[in-house]
Amino acid sequence: MYYAGIDLGGTKLSAGLVTETGEVAAEVVTYDHCTGDEQEIINCMVRNIDKALSRVHAGRSDIRGVGVLFPGHVRWPEGITLTTSNLPTLRNYPLKDALSAALNLPVVVDNDANVQTLGEYKYGAGRGCRHMVFLTVSTGVGGGIIIDGHLYRGATGTAGEFGHMIVEASSSVTCPCGNHGCLMAMVSGLALRQTAKRTSDQFVHEGKPFELPSGCLDIDDLDGHMLSKGAMESNELCQSIIKEFGTYIGIGIYNVFQVLNPERVVLGGGLMNLPDLFFKTVQSVFLDKAKAMMYDRLDIRRGELGGQAGILGASVLFDA
Amino acid sequence: MYYAGIDLGGTKLSAGLVTETGEVAAEVVTYDHCTGDEQEIINCMVRNIDKALSRVHAGRSDIRGVGVLFPGHVRWPEGITLTTSNLPTLRNYPLKDALSAALNLPVVVDNDANVQTLGEYKYGAGRGCRHMVFLTVSTGVGGGIIIDGHLYRGATGTAGEFGHMIVEASSSVTCPCGNHGCLMAMVSGLALRQTAKRTSDQFVHEGKPFELPSGCLDIDDLDGHMLSKGAMESNELCQSIIKEFGTYIGIGIYNVFQVLNPERVVLGGGLMNLPDLFFKTVQSVFLDKAKAMMYDRLDIRRGELGGQAGILGASVLFDA
Repeated sequence: MYYAGIDLGGTKLSAGLVTETGEVAAEVVTYDHCTGDEQEIINCMVRNIDKALSRVHAGRSDIRGVGVLFPGHVRWPEGITLTTSNLPTLRNYPLKDALSAALNLPVVVDNDANVQTLGEYKYGAGRGCRHMVFLTVSTGVGGGIIIDGHLYRGATGTAGEFGHMIVEASSSVTCPCGNHGCLMAMVSGLALRQTAKRTSDQFVHEGKPFELPSGCLDIDDLDGHMLSKGAMESNELCQSIIKEFGTYIGIGIYNVFQVLNPERVVLGGGLMNLPDLFFKTVQSVFLDKAKAMMYDRLDIRRGELGGQAGILGASVLFDA
Repeated sequence: MYYAGIDLGGTKLSAGLVTETGEVAAEVVTYDHCTGDEQEIINCMVRNIDKALSRVHAGRSDIRGVGVLFPGHVRWPEGITLTTSNLPTLRNYPLKDALSAALNLPVVVDNDANVQTLGEYKYGAGRGCRHMVFLTVSTGVGGGIIIDGHLYRGATGTAGEFGHMIVEASSSVTCPCGNHGCLMAMVSGLALRQTAKRTSDQFVHEGKPFELPSGCLDIDDLDGHMLSKGAMESNELCQSIIKEFGTYIGIGIYNVFQVLNPERVVLGGGLMNLPDLFFKTVQSVFLDKAKAMMYDRLDIRRGELGGQAGILGASVLFDA
């Protein structure tokens, strides 16, 4: 028997068959779903699952249940997709019921951060925890919460939105949500341009000379790759930006610690590819804030699943 | 059968016998425990319980269990008191085991905010909730979390410390914990003096004339009572301070909403005695931040138990 996991992204649609011990037996990836309407997206998911099944010479009756990672808010447990910037046709869409009818199989749908949390909890850096928090720092900042070994979703299914915690209430830095000083406004892929501009202005203000990292001609063009490369080359501006990012994630984890007192925080997402300076800053800022208020060590770890967190997590959804 | 609830304060020691339906059948209050050593504090608790029992012509065998509200951190489930500013002899003291041995009854010990949370959940404004948060705004800011009808304590028992969430990371306002911009540094009894000074400086800076409220001769003497009275008399300085307090509590609740997505937030503590302007600001700031990110209405309510939240909550501890 298999669990099917579907990672429904804005550009990539991946469907996998996962064994009960967490091995990916087959995976089919396509890139042609995103221009279609909701029915076409359902058809793509069905096709990819059927293709994966044929690769292992199995049929739909060999699937115990299907989990879907959706890149946006989901009303839980109805599996109605609420908002998403990547797949506009799936706004207020009964994805769970529609896919279940198309496959004649039970389906569970949840948001990307919750799914990744389940994956890391069951097969990755969260194994063996009772209370765990997963925090993903990528284009945006999101996360998920494991309490007593179960995913905690809250009243509507939107718990774990750590990126919208306000950490700089008086800041002028705006978040796509319209508020000021949210964690993801201070640190995320989306925040990079604003942070780079602010940091370079600060250098100018302090009369500190600085150079752009090699390959970057304008501060507005600084991307994650240049940032990493620059920091490795000891570029002070890049190091300063990475330190600021690490500082805010350290503060975010500190807030999560005060609210949830978990045993472990697992960090994932693209910003974990930044040089070690980032993760080291996160850890030292957290410890500096927590001081004597921490009675048992909070373990901050890197996620272990990388690109397969989506499929593995989605496959766990059905039993979670 | 009764549950015994003990509210162990820095000045007041209250022991009550509570019926299974939440009625306080007898209560004994004394004020002489705080100068004694740990053994004397235990003796006072035993004496008060025995006195309460004699009032209802009952004996210790009529008590199912004893719950103790402790004003500080407690290591859970061992019932070892960790820190407290009010009862210095009870630092790192095995209160649960010592009281259990003295009474020959099962004892449970937890911190004040968790106990009040249980009280409001079972007998007060949290009745009927599945996921609830209690936030108390008093000398400091604390709270507790109900998840799936149970108190959530976290890995060490320190979950729900909402007062230490950092909401103004770049602020110069210091918290007794040593960090800057914690919620309780921005709004609490302890924060009143700093906030009053900052607000009056702001009035001066903006060239706005202001008066101190009647009965207040120096801004440093402004207390909660004068603040309330001033606001009722339309004193602009007092109204401005109350609005700032309400704003930060609104932001704190917004952060709690993003992390925990509870159905209800119940507010308690002395600052709830401030004029309506406080609670109205809390609600409007929360709604302003949550905007379209809230899919089901978060219900923000005033606590209902007042002074009896301690004894009632402690009596629930044993079964929680």
